[in-house]
Parts: sequence; C-alpha cells; structure tokens
Amino acid sequence: MTQSRLDLFVDRMVSQRACLDHAARAIADLPGPVFELGLGNGRTYHHMRHIMPARDIFVFERAVASHPDSTPPVDMVLLGDVFDTLPAALKRFGATATLIHADLGGHDRVKNDIFARNVSPLVEPLLAVGGLMVSSDRMYFERLVEQPLPDGAVPGRCFIYRREA
Amino acid sequence: MTQSRLDLFVDRMVSQRACLDHAARAIADLPGPVFELGLGNGRTYHHMRHIMPARDIFVFERAVASHPDSTPPVDMVLLGDVFDTLPAALKRFGATATLIHADLGGHDRVKNDIFARNVSPLVEPLLAVGGLMVSSDRMYFERLVEQPLPDGAVPGRCFIYRREA
Repeated sequence: MTQSRLDLFVDRMVSQRACLDHAARAIADLPGPVFELGLGNGRTYHHMRHIMPARDIFVFERAVASHPDSTPPVDMVLLGDVFDTLPAALKRFGATATLIHADLGGHDRVKNDIFARNVSPLVEPLLAVGGLMVSSDRMYFERLVEQPLPDGAVPGRCFIYRREA
Repeated sequence: MTQSRLDLFVDRMVSQRACLDHAARAIADLPGPVFELGLGNGRTYHHMRHIMPARDIFVFERAVASHPDSTPPVDMVLLGDVFDTLPAALKRFGATATLIHADLGGHDRVKNDIFARNVSPLVEPLLAVGGLMVSSDRMYFERLVEQPLPDGAVPGRCFIYRREA
C-alpha cells in the first residue's frame, strides 16, 4: 500500500526527533552554538531547547510567528532572508556551529530541492569540525559526509551530515 | 524527563493514525458515511480517503484552505460553522454516520475543552449504532462508550467512542 500524506508526515516528524536526539548526544562534548533554520510554530525549537538546555540556540527566520512558549529571546533570532543572514552568521561566528537543523518543510518537492541546492553552500562553512547538520531534505554539500541514521528514523525522511575535518 | 511540544505532537499524530486505521477496520462492514470535522491542510482527510477509498467522506469546515491533492469535491464539503452544519447534517443524514473524526487541534487546552463540551451533544446523535467517534481531545457524550485504544496509540493523545445501541 502506498503512503498517505499523514503517513509521510508522521515519518518525517518521528525521524526529525530521532535525528535531533541522536545529534544532541553526539555533539554533547563539543563547544559551540546550535542553529535552527526556520522557526515556524516553534515546536522543533521547543524540542531542541528541551534536549539541549545549556546550549546557545540561534534561530534564522524571516518573521517570528511562533507559539508563545516556543519563541526565542530577541537576541537569539537572526531575522531576515537566509541568503543574507547565513553569510552574516559566517562573519560573526566563523566555523563554530556544532549542530545546524533545517526543516524546509514546503509541500513542493521541486522547490524544496532547489532551495536545498542553493542554501547548502551557505550552511556548509558554518559547521565546526565534528559538527552535524540535520535536515528533512537531502542537502548538497561538497565536503560534509552523510551519516547513518539512528534507530527510529526512516530513510529518506531525514538526513544527517558531518564535517569530518 | 518531561515532554517537548514536538514529543506531544508526534504522540498525537501517531495516535490519530493508529485510531483511524483501527476504526476504519472496525466499521468496514457497516454502511454509512464518514464525517471529518475540520479539514486544515487536509493531511488527515488524505489519509482517511487512503484507508477508506470506497466511503463517502463529508468534511465540515468553515473555509477550505487545504493542500490541492487533499481538497474534497465541493459537494462533499459542509461549509460553515459546525454549530450550524452539525444540526443541518442530522436533518439530512439522520443517525447514519459510521465514523466521525475530529482533531480540534488548538494550542489552547482550555478553549479546546470548552469546544469539546459544546460540540459533543451535536456529534452524538449523528452516529449509527456501532459507529465510532475518534477524537484528539476528550469528548463529553451521554451514551457513547469510550473504547480501549489500539496498539501504537498513546493514552490521552486520542480517544475512541462507540454508539452501542
């Protein structure tokens, strides 16, 4: 039987959580900030705060419209278009990010893929050595290495990449 | 460890699917329409069509704004406020519904509960004998009987009620 949109969505959300939980453990001893690309209603940001309470988590968002209990402090939001804010973050932070998460989340697969191709070169230089990128869409990195998925994650619904050196 | 908003959401979506899959099997031999209260982006409606392809599924919604591939035919939408459209449906269909699903889905628990209390008496008379109501919130029925949850559903994240007689 093929999958419904609800099936795909459940798989994506379950996989997202499994990958984030796994990544948070993997980077536990690595110092450096965490970046969330896109806030939406803030459910995933809320989870990231929950599993990484001591970590600085910066949120990249055009316009904050999240649930009140999942809204980041103003000074932790990098407001604007990611094609501006990601290069600005590279100047500000250098290659220090321990974990970068993105759920592009659009309904249009083709548009998502184009966006992933365009944003990948801006994400790649932000990661520290040993840092991880978790994404709900396939990304296009030159040197990051795709990682095996943790238990509970569904292949194709989530991707993990690592900066090896 | 307490749960994040993502944890609660994953539990709710996984439970919704488990309960709907279970309910669809349970009513398979019972003739009569299915009602979906609230369409949203149409993900759950898409799933209901997927698991019950031969069933008439009527959707109660104020304003249709669903994903194109999850938009019901115009003649299957009962457009308007449920406090008007549910009583109208009782006149039109009588007590014939085999399955009624509702995900009130608001962020505000207190508001959801008030809504559940107010809408329950309008839902109850629509069900056929043997019909099931699946809800993401606790409902307040006089004669429907709460059912055990199927495997995979998380207690408190989904509820099933049955009209016994």
